[in-house]
Amino acid sequence: MNIFEQIQKPTLLLDEEIAKNNLHRMSQRVKAAGVRFRPHFKTHQSAQIGEWFRAEGVTAITVSSLDMAIYFSQYGWQDITLAFPVNLRQIDTINHLAARMHFGILVESPETVLFLREHLSAPVDVWIKVDTGNGRTGIAWDHLAAFRQLASLITSCQNLHFKGLLTHAGQSYRASSKEDICHIYQESINRINHSRDELAAMGFGPLQVSVGDTPGASLCNPGRVYELRPGNFIFYDTQQVQIGACQDEDIAVAVACPVVALHPERNEVVLYGGAIHLSSDFLTEDGHRVYGRVALPQENRWGKPLPGAYVRGLSQEHGVAHLEAGDIQRIQVGELLCILPAHSCLTAHNMQEYLTLDGKRIHTMNRPSSGN
Amino acid sequence: MNIFEQIQKPTLLLDEEIAKNNLHRMSQRVKAAGVRFRPHFKTHQSAQIGEWFRAEGVTAITVSSLDMAIYFSQYGWQDITLAFPVNLRQIDTINHLAARMHFGILVESPETVLFLREHLSAPVDVWIKVDTGNGRTGIAWDHLAAFRQLASLITSCQNLHFKGLLTHAGQSYRASSKEDICHIYQESINRINHSRDELAAMGFGPLQVSVGDTPGASLCNPGRVYELRPGNFIFYDTQQVQIGACQDEDIAVAVACPVVALHPERNEVVLYGGAIHLSSDFLTEDGHRVYGRVALPQENRWGKPLPGAYVRGLSQEHGVAHLEAGDIQRIQVGELLCILPAHSCLTAHNMQEYLTLDGKRIHTMNRPSSGN
Repeated sequence: MNIFEQIQKPTLLLDEEIAKNNLHRMSQRVKAAGVRFRPHFKTHQSAQIGEWFRAEGVTAITVSSLDMAIYFSQYGWQDITLAFPVNLRQIDTINHLAARMHFGILVESPETVLFLREHLSAPVDVWIKVDTGNGRTGIAWDHLAAFRQLASLITSCQNLHFKGLLTHAGQSYRASSKEDICHIYQESINRINHSRDELAAMGFGPLQVSVGDTPGASLCNPGRVYELRPGNFIFYDTQQVQIGACQDEDIAVAVACPVVALHPERNEVVLYGGAIHLSSDFLTEDGHRVYGRVALPQENRWGKPLPGAYVRGLSQEHGVAHLEAGDIQRIQVGELLCILPAHSCLTAHNMQEYLTLDGKRIHTMNRPSSGN
Repeated sequence: MNIFEQIQKPTLLLDEEIAKNNLHRMSQRVKAAGVRFRPHFKTHQSAQIGEWFRAEGVTAITVSSLDMAIYFSQYGWQDITLAFPVNLRQIDTINHLAARMHFGILVESPETVLFLREHLSAPVDVWIKVDTGNGRTGIAWDHLAAFRQLASLITSCQNLHFKGLLTHAGQSYRASSKEDICHIYQESINRINHSRDELAAMGFGPLQVSVGDTPGASLCNPGRVYELRPGNFIFYDTQQVQIGACQDEDIAVAVACPVVALHPERNEVVLYGGAIHLSSDFLTEDGHRVYGRVALPQENRWGKPLPGAYVRGLSQEHGVAHLEAGDIQRIQVGELLCILPAHSCLTAHNMQEYLTLDGKRIHTMNRPSSGN
């Protein structure tokens, strides 16, 4: 049976073969470099997809929330880093997890370490979050006084095992070519190793270095790092294609959206599929927003993105796609378009469930049992 | 007990008093104008909040999906318009609902009407969707040949009861003042009434006119319309303040977000609260993005928005707020900031549950029982 026939409303399709190829390729890259692979599970948020990683030999993972740590711990994951600054208000949950697994946390504030010294009841691995240029979280890589202060505090706490320095070089998402990505990656590695060397000179160490953006991990020589934590690579998306981190053929997810209206007079198609499905994330191209690219269903898979076609706008449940005039004429109301998302992590989070091309439903932590 | 003490992670706060005042004010406006009130329930998506509307005498509602129609029908709502172009792939669900309630649908394509003529098994009210300038869905208001064709088809179908013309003047969200909003509203009313008068001259009628954007419904004389369908007004948000549709004091929801890091060197605070909580929607002000405004907790409510403060960026779980230097000094890691969202409909959809200021949890259709 054709997978598209059963689809009634916006549905997140997962091409298992592409995703497993993406995973295997990344796993091999990381192994070949002699680096530990600690993939970020915030992209897929699914215990079933987690098993694909286990089959590749993965035993250590990264998550972005305590809820996610609890969910994956229930499926046997026992070595989890929460790559998010500690939220003091969830100390009870942190203690709960720390008592039951090998749990890693990120700190960047002395106040946080002082709080943990008072309230932590079991040992955790601790990483200092380093800002190597992204400008979101972490201690600036060259702010040595702050590193010294924080490292001293950490090593004064019995339950804090100082593991190393961790960064997310998210500035690579603003790159415009492979060369640009690897330049940013190498600069980030140099900076975090500078921080580590300075800490070593102060007597702190040996310290590990953990890095992990998908663009850098996909394309660049890992260099002097201990572990890599990419996440998005399992699915990739339109943004990763735009910056040069992957090809269209590597995108493993698409939202199948019913066509509900045609406006050939303005080269537009209205879709059932909006911000609550795809998320409001977009990329910018030639001065306009791209909320996703458009592919047509083929026999049991989606085709290549239609040239010149893109989702130009989203409301809560509506999407409006621009298509070339010749392509609009091939489409009828009631048919499906497959939208390759701008940002697959948020799309997967919103959709809460995958339908594989051979008809299996795969759940995420946000919908543990099927709610269709 | 202080409501803020119990909050551990991003939590959608609902000021019930503000929301009920917003509702009562709108209900009175609509009643005074002698217009039917058919509020859009996509904003709150909650059966419990629906009861507040019932207490105001509301019996007819608008929804944006069949799932939402089913949900509210289970709570006794028997007169529902689905303000979204018909999705042919869900004809079985449409027939299920049409057999059980007074159900209204929107059409804009002849293909859709022809399909419904073949497949509809129970009567429904049908509205032609009119584009009065928004440029998203609907027949352009002056495209009389298209109206004639569609109206003829509709009246040839036994189960389609041709009720009238419906528009969403979403272009009012691009307004910049009250005068601008009411100019757009009046233009939209004039246009849809022009379409109606032309259809009447062709012998179709009498037809009703349904309109319903929150900015226009909040501020403007309803004029020559049969029903109003605003939704956002129950909560309002930062965008509605920006365009002049409401005041800061009218915003009824805020996401309480724990502070996880301080960066006074760049006047920024890192929050646990990201795109999966607030949505990625933003407004633009002075050339930068505003994903929400920032208020401080006060005794059991949030205060006025801090001048000059705004959420400047969101990742999946992180938010980064810009604050004035003096305000950052008042904040500690572990405290909460209350973020007034850019777009409350999407925030409420994402959060799935409200916490009222007196400690009640109110569920939405997306989390029918508490999942905390």
